[in-house]
Amino acid sequence: MLWSDGRLVEGGTLPFAMADRGLLLGDGVFDTALAVQGRVAFEAAHADRLAAAAAALGFSVERARIVEAMRALAGTAPLAAIRTTLTRGPGPRGLAPPAEPQPFLFGSAAPARAALFFAPLRLMPTEIARNETSPAARLKTLGYLDAVLAARDAQAQGFDEALFLNTAGRVACAGTGNVFAILGATLVTPPLGEGVLPGIVRAELLSNLAPGLGLTVEERPLLPSELEAAEALFVTNSLRLLAPVTALGARAYDSAGHGTVRRLGAALREAVAAECAVGADALDP
Amino acid sequence: MLWSDGRLVEGGTLPFAMADRGLLLGDGVFDTALAVQGRVAFEAAHADRLAAAAAALGFSVERARIVEAMRALAGTAPLAAIRTTLTRGPGPRGLAPPAEPQPFLFGSAAPARAALFFAPLRLMPTEIARNETSPAARLKTLGYLDAVLAARDAQAQGFDEALFLNTAGRVACAGTGNVFAILGATLVTPPLGEGVLPGIVRAELLSNLAPGLGLTVEERPLLPSELEAAEALFVTNSLRLLAPVTALGARAYDSAGHGTVRRLGAALREAVAAECAVGADALDP
Repeated sequence: MLWSDGRLVEGGTLPFAMADRGLLLGDGVFDTALAVQGRVAFEAAHADRLAAAAAALGFSVERARIVEAMRALAGTAPLAAIRTTLTRGPGPRGLAPPAEPQPFLFGSAAPARAALFFAPLRLMPTEIARNETSPAARLKTLGYLDAVLAARDAQAQGFDEALFLNTAGRVACAGTGNVFAILGATLVTPPLGEGVLPGIVRAELLSNLAPGLGLTVEERPLLPSELEAAEALFVTNSLRLLAPVTALGARAYDSAGHGTVRRLGAALREAVAAECAVGADALDP
Repeated sequence: MLWSDGRLVEGGTLPFAMADRGLLLGDGVFDTALAVQGRVAFEAAHADRLAAAAAALGFSVERARIVEAMRALAGTAPLAAIRTTLTRGPGPRGLAPPAEPQPFLFGSAAPARAALFFAPLRLMPTEIARNETSPAARLKTLGYLDAVLAARDAQAQGFDEALFLNTAGRVACAGTGNVFAILGATLVTPPLGEGVLPGIVRAELLSNLAPGLGLTVEERPLLPSELEAAEALFVTNSLRLLAPVTALGARAYDSAGHGTVRRLGAALREAVAAECAVGADALDP
């Protein structure tokens, strides 16, 4: 199901301006959110992030339109994976944006897979660096090819997803989520400057859930050797929620059995359910 | 003017599968070529490169279709800038490509600007690194946002375009072209491994034009200090052809007046004209 220009559209095809810079140059941003029984979890944060990412690139749509798209799509499945995409719109040939861009917003929804919530994840380190020198590394832009290529390689080797280091050789993120390490009594995740997307679940953990559980949280550069030494690792994103990492290359972890991971997962489950005004069992597979 | 599915289409809009991975993930490649009076310069090299880039990503269309698109668009203007774009086509949610991709090929043409041929170029170094650790750095993928952002910054400071170093701090390329330096009697350009697109004009210079003029050519890693020390610099691409660099940040160059640059430019002009079976004056502004 698609949303475009104020309405839901069945089928997958729309009239599209082929000079759209999102398609031609990756000049756009997107957001992925989970909706449960018609309500978008962390709706305001998702809308804010998409609007801020576009603003960082120098274009905008009314924030209310983003919310409208997400809400219209939220009701299309009991558990809905919603993607909103915002491009700079069409432009003339070349890199230079038009003086007055006409941004293009559209959305799509598909049934979310409850089996993915809190499901374990096997990570394979990739040789492709996350390029933290680019502002795009901190924005959810349309340029996901590195993640596609790294995931392909990881899956060919029997893993689920890639782990990216940045160009300085420090930990950045997984292909589709933020990485956290449990080091003794401390929860550590890299700061955005390391080439990290401002994940919505990441922010919820840092600002609310971890402090709520009395956990010490550090947002600081993280070395690969610290991941190796960590008691447990997990990856967060809006559709997997909190995925315990059971392997990083040859290193195995009992992250799923780790008390802190379990407590954070349970707190996130409650928070998502509260956001969507449902019981936590609405998230059961 | 667009080309899609075997025919030319007026207007800028086509029915488009909104789940196309080129739009959603930057999962696609493109080519830009110059056509003069209906003929595409270096047509075989352009078609080969686009087909090879798609193959590197794991999908393909018949090469003959690429040539068909380019030829159909070549006649739409006396001097035509042709862009052919090839995506992996639509896919389900997530990073994993469909098992049997249905790639989408389309093209567009606009009048090429003869005023850009051999026109001088002012480069500004960008802090954004060219990420040579990614295979995408050697493919003309849809992910051009770094080039867009760097060009915006360069132009805000009174320059035309950005110069990218790679993550190792060595010279990679300009935002839309390959970089060459004249160091004494030698022509130097970085190898593809430095995070460099295999430019069609670059290859023509390396393989044919420079040897034809008796020039020594080195494809080797190039330091920023060597650019500073160079007698002259130029940038090559298919629509500017050979652009003498007159400034790189605060350093000025008389590249346009340099004998070697002039001879290479003249040889390229002849080569393009011969490719298109026209007189060299067909390239005059």
